[in-house]
Amino acid sequence: MTATPHLIGLDWGTSSLRAQLFDAQGAVLETRSRPWGIMHVPDGDFAAAYRALVGDWREAQPDLPAIACGMVGSRGGWHEVPYADCPADVHSLAAGLLRLDTGCGDLHLVPGVMQRGALPNVLRGEETQVFGALELEPDLAAEALLVLPGTHSKWVRVRDGRLTDFATYMTGELFAVLREHSILGRPAAEAGPEASAEAFRLGLTTARDAGAEGLFGRLFTARSRVLAGELGAAHSLDYLSGLLIGEELRSQVAALAGATCPPLVLIGDAALCQRYRDALALFDIHQVRLLEQATRAGLWRLAQAAGLLPTSGGSHA
Amino acid sequence: MTATPHLIGLDWGTSSLRAQLFDAQGAVLETRSRPWGIMHVPDGDFAAAYRALVGDWREAQPDLPAIACGMVGSRGGWHEVPYADCPADVHSLAAGLLRLDTGCGDLHLVPGVMQRGALPNVLRGEETQVFGALELEPDLAAEALLVLPGTHSKWVRVRDGRLTDFATYMTGELFAVLREHSILGRPAAEAGPEASAEAFRLGLTTARDAGAEGLFGRLFTARSRVLAGELGAAHSLDYLSGLLIGEELRSQVAALAGATCPPLVLIGDAALCQRYRDALALFDIHQVRLLEQATRAGLWRLAQAAGLLPTSGGSHA
Repeated sequence: MTATPHLIGLDWGTSSLRAQLFDAQGAVLETRSRPWGIMHVPDGDFAAAYRALVGDWREAQPDLPAIACGMVGSRGGWHEVPYADCPADVHSLAAGLLRLDTGCGDLHLVPGVMQRGALPNVLRGEETQVFGALELEPDLAAEALLVLPGTHSKWVRVRDGRLTDFATYMTGELFAVLREHSILGRPAAEAGPEASAEAFRLGLTTARDAGAEGLFGRLFTARSRVLAGELGAAHSLDYLSGLLIGEELRSQVAALAGATCPPLVLIGDAALCQRYRDALALFDIHQVRLLEQATRAGLWRLAQAAGLLPTSGGSHA
Repeated sequence: MTATPHLIGLDWGTSSLRAQLFDAQGAVLETRSRPWGIMHVPDGDFAAAYRALVGDWREAQPDLPAIACGMVGSRGGWHEVPYADCPADVHSLAAGLLRLDTGCGDLHLVPGVMQRGALPNVLRGEETQVFGALELEPDLAAEALLVLPGTHSKWVRVRDGRLTDFATYMTGELFAVLREHSILGRPAAEAGPEASAEAFRLGLTTARDAGAEGLFGRLFTARSRVLAGELGAAHSLDYLSGLLIGEELRSQVAALAGATCPPLVLIGDAALCQRYRDALALFDIHQVRLLEQATRAGLWRLAQAAGLLPTSGGSHA
């Protein structure tokens, strides 16, 4: 078997566009990326951006299949893909792929997932990471809690190979808007922000110890502790980060209601995942795995489930 | 007794400056206001602003006492006044007045209050409303819970005539920054916001029913309910307002831990207080008083306690 390309996989999110060329075994032959998230596509021309990034791959192999996940399939993306229902598995997601004629070959867009019921919820992009994680660590399929921290952190439950339900915490976005636009960001803006593991920990324990009252009545401590002289202005952002991540964890631990935590996996940026792992230790959760590269594994798995890949042994060369 | 001025009282906050001229009984003879909150004082010249607003009153009666409460006494105001300690009463506040030579007579600045301990907290301006409320409704002095909703809502406990402790909720500021700067504000910005009592109620009950998990994992429903087609984009801001006020109330009810709620008084803007009263009803709290004009009563009471007023029967005329 030579290193013949078998699939183009795109991770096209809010802030960036990444393309990967897969070989017959799902290993990555080449990666390219551009800062062309869906809000930053040059001239808003998705087709031109797509052609600019992968046009030469397509010309070399016109029938190479292509798949894309992420916000490219949202209303503000290239083309809206209806959400798959929750619970979802690889087959329901594969069945929900939307085939888009790009003018440069077909591109299959992965659907997001909607949880209906009393508290509707949505995700888009994370479904691919979830099934990528199950591909990389098959023992998780029986039962797992997958945590994808970020702008909107997702806590995803998996049972019997299905994505059964999930929660959203706007942790990263809240941190950013409070830092930039609220009174809580001012002390650090004036003093110049400095990292402080101690301030981060104090924020975590302050949120953890709020109990059923929750963080809301303690958020202002990111300012009042500075005024009281017990938190350095420069460290107040790490304290705020600790408050918000701490509230996310406190809420999820409360949701467990005393039940044992299922195997827990952090997926995403290594530094951010390490931050969450440190935080989880303060909540007495020590058995935590970290996973990277879940998206590429998920794109491969979904393309496979959708029958996009050439049958075993076939080649486009 | 003629209507001779006895006191100038200023409420000088973040967004506005209000001056009142009191008669010998503490009734208001005249009111003036300017949009000269401490962030918007013309040329940052507090003395000139003061002179422009009350200079003629001072010229007519050069020894007329003057008192001011609010953010004018903060670090970013005219002159910083050290916080009084918690618990505080009218006498400790009166003792903490800072006498400022304005170049146009003395002005006495009321100190804010700092709560020290494990969770430090501060207020500035609300202390005057609190003791004004006790002046207006003396039966509250024994025990009361005073709620001052706004940018930073304060929940203040009074016992035996003393301000014993308080909590801060950044409800108004959070609403503003989420509306202006987060993804939660977008649907209404695009559709054009419309009031909806029903959406407000749905937000309140969604927060109320979160239990110990708290609002954080439900905040995103201000978007996901729109995506799921069950909340109108135009109504999503009232829903968000309900979520935030609901979390404030849920947290305070949790803090009661089953104890009976003390007599509860809402102080401030009538429309906002009515919104809170409606919200409290959904938490089965129905005995709620509304109070306006607490600041002017508090300025009068503090001036009296500080011995600034001419002795009984005296007159400056």
